[in-house]
Amino acid sequence: MTPFKLTDELLAQIEELIDSGQNDSLHTLLEEVHYADVAEILNELDNDHATYLIKLFDSDKTSDVLTELDEDVRESVLKNLSSKEIAGELEELDTDDAADIVAELPKEIVQEVISEITDRDHARDIVDLLRYDENSAGGLMAKELVKVNENWNVLTCVKEMRHQAENVTRVHSIYVVDDEGILKGRLSLKDLLTTSTRSPIRDIYIPKVDRVNVNEKPEEVAKIMSKYDLEAIPVVDEIGRLVGRITIDDIVDVIREEADKDYQLAAGISQDVEADDSIWELTRARLPWLFLGMFGGMGAAAIMGGFETMMAQHGMLFFFTPLIAAMAGNVGVQSSAIVVQGLANDDLKGSISSRLMKEMLLASLNGLILASVLLLLTWFWKGSFPTALAISISLISVIVVAGIIGTFIPLFLHKRGIDPAIATGPFITTSNDIFGILIYFSIAKVLLGI
Amino acid sequence: MTPFKLTDELLAQIEELIDSGQNDSLHTLLEEVHYADVAEILNELDNDHATYLIKLFDSDKTSDVLTELDEDVRESVLKNLSSKEIAGELEELDTDDAADIVAELPKEIVQEVISEITDRDHARDIVDLLRYDENSAGGLMAKELVKVNENWNVLTCVKEMRHQAENVTRVHSIYVVDDEGILKGRLSLKDLLTTSTRSPIRDIYIPKVDRVNVNEKPEEVAKIMSKYDLEAIPVVDEIGRLVGRITIDDIVDVIREEADKDYQLAAGISQDVEADDSIWELTRARLPWLFLGMFGGMGAAAIMGGFETMMAQHGMLFFFTPLIAAMAGNVGVQSSAIVVQGLANDDLKGSISSRLMKEMLLASLNGLILASVLLLLTWFWKGSFPTALAISISLISVIVVAGIIGTFIPLFLHKRGIDPAIATGPFITTSNDIFGILIYFSIAKVLLGI
Repeated sequence: MTPFKLTDELLAQIEELIDSGQNDSLHTLLEEVHYADVAEILNELDNDHATYLIKLFDSDKTSDVLTELDEDVRESVLKNLSSKEIAGELEELDTDDAADIVAELPKEIVQEVISEITDRDHARDIVDLLRYDENSAGGLMAKELVKVNENWNVLTCVKEMRHQAENVTRVHSIYVVDDEGILKGRLSLKDLLTTSTRSPIRDIYIPKVDRVNVNEKPEEVAKIMSKYDLEAIPVVDEIGRLVGRITIDDIVDVIREEADKDYQLAAGISQDVEADDSIWELTRARLPWLFLGMFGGMGAAAIMGGFETMMAQHGMLFFFTPLIAAMAGNVGVQSSAIVVQGLANDDLKGSISSRLMKEMLLASLNGLILASVLLLLTWFWKGSFPTALAISISLISVIVVAGIIGTFIPLFLHKRGIDPAIATGPFITTSNDIFGILIYFSIAKVLLGI
Repeated sequence: MTPFKLTDELLAQIEELIDSGQNDSLHTLLEEVHYADVAEILNELDNDHATYLIKLFDSDKTSDVLTELDEDVRESVLKNLSSKEIAGELEELDTDDAADIVAELPKEIVQEVISEITDRDHARDIVDLLRYDENSAGGLMAKELVKVNENWNVLTCVKEMRHQAENVTRVHSIYVVDDEGILKGRLSLKDLLTTSTRSPIRDIYIPKVDRVNVNEKPEEVAKIMSKYDLEAIPVVDEIGRLVGRITIDDIVDVIREEADKDYQLAAGISQDVEADDSIWELTRARLPWLFLGMFGGMGAAAIMGGFETMMAQHGMLFFFTPLIAAMAGNVGVQSSAIVVQGLANDDLKGSISSRLMKEMLLASLNGLILASVLLLLTWFWKGSFPTALAISISLISVIVVAGIIGTFIPLFLHKRGIDPAIATGPFITTSNDIFGILIYFSIAKVLLGI
């Protein structure tokens, strides 16, 4: 497979073909292009061109394109479609993707769009899904699945399954339910292929089946599915009835989004933005953290102002404030990142106090090594042993305190039910700057007997 | 499903049962526990207890446990097993997992272990896989797949498939090859269920099938599979022969590892470590970046030393160095993170110069807003308008330069084929600290006419 590459030439060619209305050439050109790639093209076109292409192709192609579009592009394209046309697209989609699109539509047209869907079962499933919180297993699941009654036999089951499979793109498991719809177990396609047709399902199904509750958080579902290597998981309601299933492709998206979010928070970017977003959106995501950093810097300035009298005699101390602040920041970010990652991957064992103790040992060891080098270098460079010693001893203390703060804050936030990822990046560096500088000057003052 | 929770009580109970040799109770206790959870238990036990459990259970359970263990735990457990026992475990595993374990074995026992594998086809497949670079599609793929010849008919195909499917945990697609083994296309299970048994495969297969080359990088495979929502992808060699397939569960691991690695690099942690690793391992991962920060700090100290004469009259300027350094660092990390993420997700469009231009505008806007607030606050606080103005104007310049450096360095590294993720975190903050302070004092010197 030569991977698809979106070039400026291709875009220009497509715009040209649209402007001159050469529909046949457009069909030939884009026929074999994957819908995810068509979506990439549409993301780069202006609204009129994009709408033109959506109207040109059949719903069985464009519906998938729609789900892959950037949200703002999709919104403006859908504005140009009639309720009937939107309903046509929804008809082709799996219920989970359809429900996601409906949830984005302006409230006043939702009812009309839904009423235009000719497959009433499909419409009902979509409406069902709208009830669930976006941030839950219910919000991720699709209604498409293959389920059989435990009272059937293999023959009925295969027949029924063929019928149901029409609507299901990928059959992972056949779920077995009782008369009440309660999830009892599963059958694999393989089992079905290799068992006598008269066997009752009740005798051959596997009663052990992983499942998640409809209210489970997406990150939890992701953890379960990736830990147990599942490709699909059934979703049950509060009384155990099978209400949907989640497939791994949706979970891959969840994992990517989670990772992106944590990465951005650690870098001081507060909301999901991309490099290609507008300057205004980027500013809104970045500015709050910069203000935090600035106020922190003013705090540091105020602290240093309190030690102004040391300037005449020990001006050198002031030259080392960026070093102290940088080390406090770096150590804090390192230790908070390890804790945040441990919490995210659920592999943090032991109590908070044992973790703090370990970080203290680790920071002391690192601090000792760094401070020894700094002591020698500064001593030879500046010639004043007492000052070099004061700076080095401060460095150890600052590193230890920074490590403790970096470990404690995310653990504390997590205990309070707050996402610990916000505690990495600017938050930690800013607070550690202030503490670091305060500790530094206080220790220097004592040691140098000022 | 109530998720499994590893408690200290459970661990103590298991150790107790092992010590008193109550094998039946151990069987009862762990029978129903998923292998991934058993692995979690073994990771916490000492080597003797862990080995005891591995020997106690059958290979069909323990082989999967072995693949899920932490590498160091697996290594020490395997040391206690004979070559025959290890071969027994490998026998139960898919070829990709088996090859991963063999690759970790001490060189001197590899041949013996392989020779103890009774299924010679399986042994051959494992040896085949050892040839591939770990960091390639070949290193990820498994040999287990279902393939049929285009010259067969549906009936032969179903028979053959049932036979092959014995060895394949999950059948996603049936791959169609010609007499040379060249990948021609695929069949879905659904197609096979709904077509007449006499139809020749040649007439019914779908010739379009996504594939990756055996030398493709894992991250590329991950991108392709998640973009196109694939659950499995066939791997072909240089002349198009089908040599294996990669399933989405392995890709989920790749995505997680990539994300973890980038996150750690951004936090200044150089190699894959976890919170529970030893202090020595954690030190090795963290110390190099701290040294970088320390030398950066000494560079900053040297620069400030060059402006020492300003201290007597404009000591206040020195109070604001942490603020300037923090802002330079924060802006640099923000812009580099956005670029690194854009590169990772392949959605960075346009030239380097247009990107730098955008960042410059963005940084100027942010800088202007921040500097105006800083100007007012500092003016009222310290009473000296010229100094406040000098600090504020420096802040804008520092932010713009920091944004440009943060944008340029990852783009530059990426062009050179170096992972841009190393350019976030300490690398950017350190270089921006130095540049920021240099710019700050230079501008202040000019503006204040010193």
